Amino acid sequence: MARWEPGARERLVLAAVALFSEQGYDETTVTQIAERAGVTKSTFFRHFPDKRELLAAGQETLSRLLAEGIADAPAGSSPLDAVAAGLDRASGEMGPMNRELGPRLKAAVAASAELQERDALKSVGMAAAMTTALVARGVAEAPARLASEIGVLAFKQGFDRWSGTARNDDDGLARHTLAALAELRAATAALG
Amino acid sequence: MARWEPGARERLVLAAVALFSEQGYDETTVTQIAERAGVTKSTFFRHFPDKRELLAAGQETLSRLLAEGIADAPAGSSPLDAVAAGLDRASGEMGPMNRELGPRLKAAVAASAELQERDALKSVGMAAAMTTALVARGVAEAPARLASEIGVLAFKQGFDRWSGTARNDDDGLARHTLAALAELRAATAALG
Repeated sequence: MARWEPGARERLVLAAVALFSEQGYDETTVTQIAERAGVTKSTFFRHFPDKRELLAAGQETLSRLLAEGIADAPAGSSPLDAVAAGLDRASGEMGPMNRELGPRLKAAVAASAELQERDALKSVGMAAAMTTALVARGVAEAPARLASEIGVLAFKQGFDRWSGTARNDDDGLARHTLAALAELRAATAALG
Repeated sequence: MARWEPGARERLVLAAVALFSEQGYDETTVTQIAERAGVTKSTFFRHFPDKRELLAAGQETLSRLLAEGIADAPAGSSPLDAVAAGLDRASGEMGPMNRELGPRLKAAVAASAELQERDALKSVGMAAAMTTALVARGVAEAPARLASEIGVLAFKQGFDRWSGTARNDDDGLARHTLAALAELRAATAALG
C-alpha cells in the first residue's frame, strides 16, 4: 500500500506550509521553500512544477486511495458502503504530519483567493475519482455522483474535526470520516 | 426581480466569451475585450476588476436568486422542496443569452486550468449560499449541506442539458433543472 513519501519531498511540504502561514502564500517563493527545507531549487523542481502544485501533492494520492477503496469494497456493497470503504482506505494513510498540517493549510487557504480556487478544484477531483470508481462497480450515474459528493463532504468534515482536536492521542482519521459519513447518511432521510 | 443587466456589461461578457473560445482565455486581453465590445478600457474596469471576474459576473446573482427562492419557499417545505424553489427562481432568470453562452463558456473552461479552478470555486459559492438559506429556515447543518450539493448538481446538469439542446424552442431552463433534481432525489433511495 502507498505511503506518504518521506525525505526531501516531505520536508519541502512542511517548509512550504510553514512559510505560507508565516508570511502568506503569495509572498513565498520557491527559493525560500527550498532554503527552509535544506535542499536546492532543482530538488524542488524534481518534485513539483511550482509552489501551487506542491499543495496538490497529497491530492492525487488521496483520490487514488478513495477510488481503490471503492473498487475493493465487497461485491454487493451499496454505493454509500463502497464510499465508506474508500474513506476508510484513504483515512488510514493519513498520519500525524497530515493532522499537524491541516489547520496551518486551512489558514493559508483562507488567506489566498488563488488557493481557494485550487482547493475547490481538488474537491471536484476527489468527487470525480469516486464517481468513476462507483460507475465501474455498476452504480448508475445519478446515485454515483450523489454518493461521491457525500463522500467529499464526509472526508472534509472528518478531516476538520480530526485535525482540530488534541494531537496527543492516537485517534485515527477514519473514525471521524466514517462518523461524518454516518451523519450524512442519516441526513438523507430528512431531505424530503 | 433582478434582471441580467443589458448594455455595456452584457456586450463585454459576450465579447469576452467569444474571444476566449476563438483564441483561448490566457491569450485574451482586457483591451481586446473592450475593443470587441465597442467600449473603452475604463468602461471595462467600471464593470469588472479583471477578465477573470467577468466570468463570475452572473455568479453572485445566481447564488442570490437560489438563496431567495429557498427563503421564499412555503413554510413546512422539505429541504429538497425548498431547493426546488431556489432552482425554479434562478432558472427563471436565465434567458437566451445564457443558453447561447453555455457551450462556449464550457469550451473556454475546458481549455484553461485557471478557469477550471475559478469554476470549481463558483460551485462552492452556490452551495454555501443555499446552505445558509436552508439553515436560516431551520434545517439542520447536515441535511442543509447535502440538499445544497444536490441543488448544485441539479443546476449544473439541468443547465448542460438545456444549453446543449436546440435553441429554436421556448423551452425554459427550469424544466431541466427540476427534472435533474427529481432524478437525484430518486437516486437518494439507491444510496444504501
